[in-house]
Amino acid sequence: MKLWDKGLSIDKKIEHFTVGNDREVDIHIAPYDLLASLAHAKMLASIGIISSEELAQVTTGIATLQQQVEDGTFVIDEQFEDVHSKIEFELTKMHGEVGKKIHTARSRNDQVLVALQLYYKDNLQSISEKTKTLFNTLLQLAKQHKTKLLPGYTHLQVAMPSSFGLWFSAYAELLIDDLHMVNAALKTVDQNPLGSAAGYGSSFPIDREFTTKELGFETLKYNVVAAQMSRGKSERTLTMALGSVSNTLARFAMDICLYMSQNFDFISFPDELTTGSSIMPHKKNPDVFELIRGKCNKIQALYTETLLITNNLPSGYHRDYQLLKENIINAFEELKDVLDIFDYAIQQVIVKNIDLQDEKYKYLFTVDNMNTLVENGMSFREAYQKIGGEVNNEIYTPDTSKKHTHVGSIDNLCLEKIREKLNSF
Amino acid sequence: MKLWDKGLSIDKKIEHFTVGNDREVDIHIAPYDLLASLAHAKMLASIGIISSEELAQVTTGIATLQQQVEDGTFVIDEQFEDVHSKIEFELTKMHGEVGKKIHTARSRNDQVLVALQLYYKDNLQSISEKTKTLFNTLLQLAKQHKTKLLPGYTHLQVAMPSSFGLWFSAYAELLIDDLHMVNAALKTVDQNPLGSAAGYGSSFPIDREFTTKELGFETLKYNVVAAQMSRGKSERTLTMALGSVSNTLARFAMDICLYMSQNFDFISFPDELTTGSSIMPHKKNPDVFELIRGKCNKIQALYTETLLITNNLPSGYHRDYQLLKENIINAFEELKDVLDIFDYAIQQVIVKNIDLQDEKYKYLFTVDNMNTLVENGMSFREAYQKIGGEVNNEIYTPDTSKKHTHVGSIDNLCLEKIREKLNSF
Amino acid sequence: MKLWDKGLSIDKKIEHFTVGNDREVDIHIAPYDLLASLAHAKMLASIGIISSEELAQVTTGIATLQQQVEDGTFVIDEQFEDVHSKIEFELTKMHGEVGKKIHTARSRNDQVLVALQLYYKDNLQSISEKTKTLFNTLLQLAKQHKTKLLPGYTHLQVAMPSSFGLWFSAYAELLIDDLHMVNAALKTVDQNPLGSAAGYGSSFPIDREFTTKELGFETLKYNVVAAQMSRGKSERTLTMALGSVSNTLARFAMDICLYMSQNFDFISFPDELTTGSSIMPHKKNPDVFELIRGKCNKIQALYTETLLITNNLPSGYHRDYQLLKENIINAFEELKDVLDIFDYAIQQVIVKNIDLQDEKYKYLFTVDNMNTLVENGMSFREAYQKIGGEVNNEIYTPDTSKKHTHVGSIDNLCLEKIREKLNSF
Amino acid sequence: MKLWDKGLSIDKKIEHFTVGNDREVDIHIAPYDLLASLAHAKMLASIGIISSEELAQVTTGIATLQQQVEDGTFVIDEQFEDVHSKIEFELTKMHGEVGKKIHTARSRNDQVLVALQLYYKDNLQSISEKTKTLFNTLLQLAKQHKTKLLPGYTHLQVAMPSSFGLWFSAYAELLIDDLHMVNAALKTVDQNPLGSAAGYGSSFPIDREFTTKELGFETLKYNVVAAQMSRGKSERTLTMALGSVSNTLARFAMDICLYMSQNFDFISFPDELTTGSSIMPHKKNPDVFELIRGKCNKIQALYTETLLITNNLPSGYHRDYQLLKENIINAFEELKDVLDIFDYAIQQVIVKNIDLQDEKYKYLFTVDNMNTLVENGMSFREAYQKIGGEVNNEIYTPDTSKKHTHVGSIDNLCLEKIREKLNSF
Repeated sequence: MKLWDKGLSIDKKIEHFTVGNDREVDIHIAPYDLLASLAHAKMLASIGIISSEELAQVTTGIATLQQQVEDGTFVIDEQFEDVHSKIEFELTKMHGEVGKKIHTARSRNDQVLVALQLYYKDNLQSISEKTKTLFNTLLQLAKQHKTKLLPGYTHLQVAMPSSFGLWFSAYAELLIDDLHMVNAALKTVDQNPLGSAAGYGSSFPIDREFTTKELGFETLKYNVVAAQMSRGKSERTLTMALGSVSNTLARFAMDICLYMSQNFDFISFPDELTTGSSIMPHKKNPDVFELIRGKCNKIQALYTETLLITNNLPSGYHRDYQLLKENIINAFEELKDVLDIFDYAIQQVIVKNIDLQDEKYKYLFTVDNMNTLVENGMSFREAYQKIGGEVNNEIYTPDTSKKHTHVGSIDNLCLEKIREKLNSF
Repeated sequence: MKLWDKGLSIDKKIEHFTVGNDREVDIHIAPYDLLASLAHAKMLASIGIISSEELAQVTTGIATLQQQVEDGTFVIDEQFEDVHSKIEFELTKMHGEVGKKIHTARSRNDQVLVALQLYYKDNLQSISEKTKTLFNTLLQLAKQHKTKLLPGYTHLQVAMPSSFGLWFSAYAELLIDDLHMVNAALKTVDQNPLGSAAGYGSSFPIDREFTTKELGFETLKYNVVAAQMSRGKSERTLTMALGSVSNTLARFAMDICLYMSQNFDFISFPDELTTGSSIMPHKKNPDVFELIRGKCNKIQALYTETLLITNNLPSGYHRDYQLLKENIINAFEELKDVLDIFDYAIQQVIVKNIDLQDEKYKYLFTVDNMNTLVENGMSFREAYQKIGGEVNNEIYTPDTSKKHTHVGSIDNLCLEKIREKLNSF
Repeated sequence: MKLWDKGLSIDKKIEHFTVGNDREVDIHIAPYDLLASLAHAKMLASIGIISSEELAQVTTGIATLQQQVEDGTFVIDEQFEDVHSKIEFELTKMHGEVGKKIHTARSRNDQVLVALQLYYKDNLQSISEKTKTLFNTLLQLAKQHKTKLLPGYTHLQVAMPSSFGLWFSAYAELLIDDLHMVNAALKTVDQNPLGSAAGYGSSFPIDREFTTKELGFETLKYNVVAAQMSRGKSERTLTMALGSVSNTLARFAMDICLYMSQNFDFISFPDELTTGSSIMPHKKNPDVFELIRGKCNKIQALYTETLLITNNLPSGYHRDYQLLKENIINAFEELKDVLDIFDYAIQQVIVKNIDLQDEKYKYLFTVDNMNTLVENGMSFREAYQKIGGEVNNEIYTPDTSKKHTHVGSIDNLCLEKIREKLNSF
Repeated sequence: MKLWDKGLSIDKKIEHFTVGNDREVDIHIAPYDLLASLAHAKMLASIGIISSEELAQVTTGIATLQQQVEDGTFVIDEQFEDVHSKIEFELTKMHGEVGKKIHTARSRNDQVLVALQLYYKDNLQSISEKTKTLFNTLLQLAKQHKTKLLPGYTHLQVAMPSSFGLWFSAYAELLIDDLHMVNAALKTVDQNPLGSAAGYGSSFPIDREFTTKELGFETLKYNVVAAQMSRGKSERTLTMALGSVSNTLARFAMDICLYMSQNFDFISFPDELTTGSSIMPHKKNPDVFELIRGKCNKIQALYTETLLITNNLPSGYHRDYQLLKENIINAFEELKDVLDIFDYAIQQVIVKNIDLQDEKYKYLFTVDNMNTLVENGMSFREAYQKIGGEVNNEIYTPDTSKKHTHVGSIDNLCLEKIREKLNSF
């Protein structure tokens, strides 16, 4: 049963081609279509297009389907091309005529649009919360390990002293920037598109402010053409937001994989979090963090996919937009898992003691040596020449006595200030 | 003169390779480095690292250089590898010893970082203002042309009636979403990174809150490692924001180019805004809008460039980051031009009268016909079958009498609501 | 059962996270792993590591599994993390000890690598053949419609006369360029990687030339480190090749969708190949070609995904590489369908008669008018001015008498030369 | 002077906007436009459109301009919008009337297309040669250091023994794959597009086989629509080819930067190839290789730019295509430099002695230990368990005695086979 079927036979292969994986993907959308369909029905009743008896039937029907979704018994079988035709079919089967009326004053584009936007909003909020959970974990780890020094690198060369406190809380503070992007995306999707119909509105006197309130949207996407053009635009914005969080996690995972290498040996993880080799019996590989890195990189690539699908298309709906939902829904589901697992796994980290007296870390302290000279009156450039000369002549002795006390430095991490920054928006 | 020169001869080709176009690009950065250097000097004076006499010298020196920048006489000649070494050299030439002291407690990374961030902040604000100017122009055009109908398309097929009022204001409303991204980027760059030195802070008791206030940053990037990691992270965020505005403009330009085609013939522009052909004497091509589209698409590609340069690099500075600034600064300069020209050109648009009675637009009104049936009691699905049958049997007559009155539709554009939405954040 | 299991309990969620969709995806790989495992076993027998009896057992066991794959009864159940552990398990179940020996002198990386490369090679050949089929269809259509004129556009503005013959055969000729990329990719994957083990070879005296011959590879990837680094490199190359074919198809589909618009009305398709609307009863939308366009754009985005996953990773295997296979295998399967459906659908095209006398096409012939003047002795620039003047003064009359006879022009399509070009490599 | 000027005043800002950096970029194109213009003139003479006297004038004029290009005195001043109008202007200034005739039977698109394609062909050949030079250098280094062992890593974890011989020659062998892509791109651009005019050919009886031979193209792009569509398509193909070479270089550079880190300390470079820090006097940073990596990553991003500019545009020229040339020409120039500098720098590499007895490298040999057990009759899986047990119980002793003799392994690098593979195509 396809809504647009006009009695013509259509080659099976083409049907498969046009439907794709919509049935699998749409399971994630089902609860949101049910919410939106109910709100639409209530609005239709409020303007007299359906009766209160009909609304009661729709309400019961939708409650039944919501229960099925909750129970996991809601299935989109082969006869339906997507969740939307399935829902209309079931309502019609249960309550006859009214099932046929519920599509009054909306179009399938409209229905997909609002259901997707509710899904996006809900899941962006989950991403935001899970990111905050990880943020708290990282601040906790920073506090716990704040006195443990770590060599700091520039150009992958030993540079200046750093610490585990700095390292953990750096990634925490960077997550705040990602949350700015998540919030911008939230504002973008938190606008009711329902009522745009096929993208040009309707001659029915629908009440879009009613559905806005009913569905809990903060505002309306007023212009119906703009509402329709959210398809594609929302996805581009969301992939930026998901990509932003992913970027921070991927880079953190890269550090972790590097620091687990025997050549750094700064951290390790319990055996449950490492993986063996089919050939090398000694291996304990950081697969979890490599997969986090890889999955986050995949999510970052999604922006290009949404761009390429939508780019240079004139305004108005195109079927291409149907292809956007599969990978973005997968990305949401994946990123939620990634955040959970990152948060779980990083708490198991074993921070090692690093011997900064080791020959290879000797020059970590040259800047501190210079600073002492500067404090004693030498100009910065002269101090630089002097210590550089000692290094070249191999007569340099590290000065490990100095404290770094300024805001945001090793001995003054400002963890609570960072927490306040997150809480202030 | 290169800051890191240790007296070794370096092959000319390699020098050229490492310096690249930094001298040209850095002209855009010069005013911001001067501001930041002055703030750093004031802070050094406030903690007693330089004397008030020395600060006075620096202040005079910087004022001189600022004047040169304003006059256009500030030039980064071949002997300098970038603007930062040039400025230090000039200060030293003017005032001796203190020029050598000004680099105390900072590093070149630090200096580049803060200057870039000030440039980014300033230019994001310009982008934001220019976007708002265009927004207002579009609302004005929507108001002016609100009664002129336009065929609405889905799948590039004639679908339902639209209007120039809807078309212009749709793009205005979409620009609001882009401004959410611009604002998120602004929050990201509006955090003082100065004091991170090489990315691990300093043993000098520098006062980072002082420079934050002095430079007008809203807050600090506290953690010095996070501050250094803003290199790359800021650029990714900025390319998303610039890409977001660009996306809306590119799609609008696509519509414009299509609507100027003789096969649509919905709009035209005065001859000054079209371009001829070297071979076809009749041509009036929409080059301005094609270039807007192309340049905006180029800007959208920049995100991938920043990702590829920074991806999977462990934390800590890498020289690769120096390559980020050229194209992002070019993108800022380009997008400001695009916004100016779009705003200028769209005001010259000539809206044509479209004959909706033309045979090809006949079916624009089928949904309105159906709605009349529904209002008279038929179910939606039955009305759909009935009008579909009339179309197939070629007995369909358009019903052009209906009004679209709901919020955001042709006859109720809600332009002031859209303006309020922009103003509310 | 996981090959690397060392008896440690591992959290279910993490297992799910690390295994991902490998079981579904690996079904496509199964026949190739079986081929490669058999070749490896034969080689092990040839150097005396397994006996000829053991080889006979492996041969029988693999034949059984091959039959299952053919019958569709081969399933990778939950207890296996991928197809490779499944196959080893089944062989061990059937024939005991020898199942445990077959992994001698190879590693799982090795096994995945060779199976994937065989899959890639086989499927690139399918892509190549299907592309040639479409090429032939297009040449046939060009021949059939070679006298039908079509307006040619530049900048979407009416420019000069074109024809359906030119249009169909243009895309045919462009497919030849794509085949150069497909062939380059074929050369890249047609190199035996087997024997690289974990990426550093083996101390067993394995005979890599034996397996090369046995598996029908054209040559070896000699260096074992290079062989391992094919992971990622092959995928990048393949995404370029698939992207190349996709690009031509996507652009062709864009033309088709545009030409089906009522404002062009150059072509149409039978109802079976169009799709209706849930709201507008008159719609016959080009969904098939929009989905072709969108799917091809998705495939083009895959290059960025492979780049981001692999970029800046040091040499040596990383688990991230496991994430490459899912989307590239899906892309292969998708592109084969796209090519089949494109070839089927384009044969149903209905070419319409276009009235080039219509006012909007009037200036199609200005260049032909000019050329007459030039042939009569006027310079090109003067003829341009003269006809331009006639157009401006609205006294221009089209000269529709001219023939375009040069190689590759409307009246001399050179279809057989184009066919020869394809056949010559 | 602009070719399409019809006497209308055009706002300066818009002129700047439309011309962009064409004048700077076009300097690279000048010699190729001159070649193509001469070939076009010869052809015009051969079909009687210009006289032999006129041809002689054009020939002299072009020779003069070629000399200017060679001397570096050829400048595209402000009055010209690009190199093509400049050349026509100069010819007209020198020889009057014939300068105006040379544009007969071609269009500017045509002219840009053929000049770009000649530039691309020439520069792809340079890239190919420089890649082969680097290939030879790497094989030489592999030979020179073939006995020096290097730890091999998987997952960045110590895995199995590798060697400098394997490492250098792995990258050499991977470059062969890149050359397949370069060759595919060469085939794509080695097709004469001249004669396509504005993309729809010409009514003049031009002889396209004449210009094909004259310009040394291997074949023709026959179909004029296909020829015009090479704009964009060629660039996409070229960015794949340049991206392919860049990818190998970027990954090699990553290894180099990592191996120079004090935590690996496998290689170093003379001081002339390292760079200091403005703050840390001890630093010797691998900036050259970081810039190689970054520049190569930038080049890899260019594919996305060309895609986004051209994607979903209907057939026929669009002005957007003019934006493609700047970054691709810059990429060619950059990649030639990168290849030169890589080849120069890698020859200066200092290979260090690595102590594989160091505790952290202890487990490099576990697979060799296992193989001994297998050779003595144990099954692979049992040997794996046994050595795994020894590792866990800390009673493992490395077996460093084994040779790796198979094709492509440490002790059998097959350098000449790899060289033959390159030479065989």
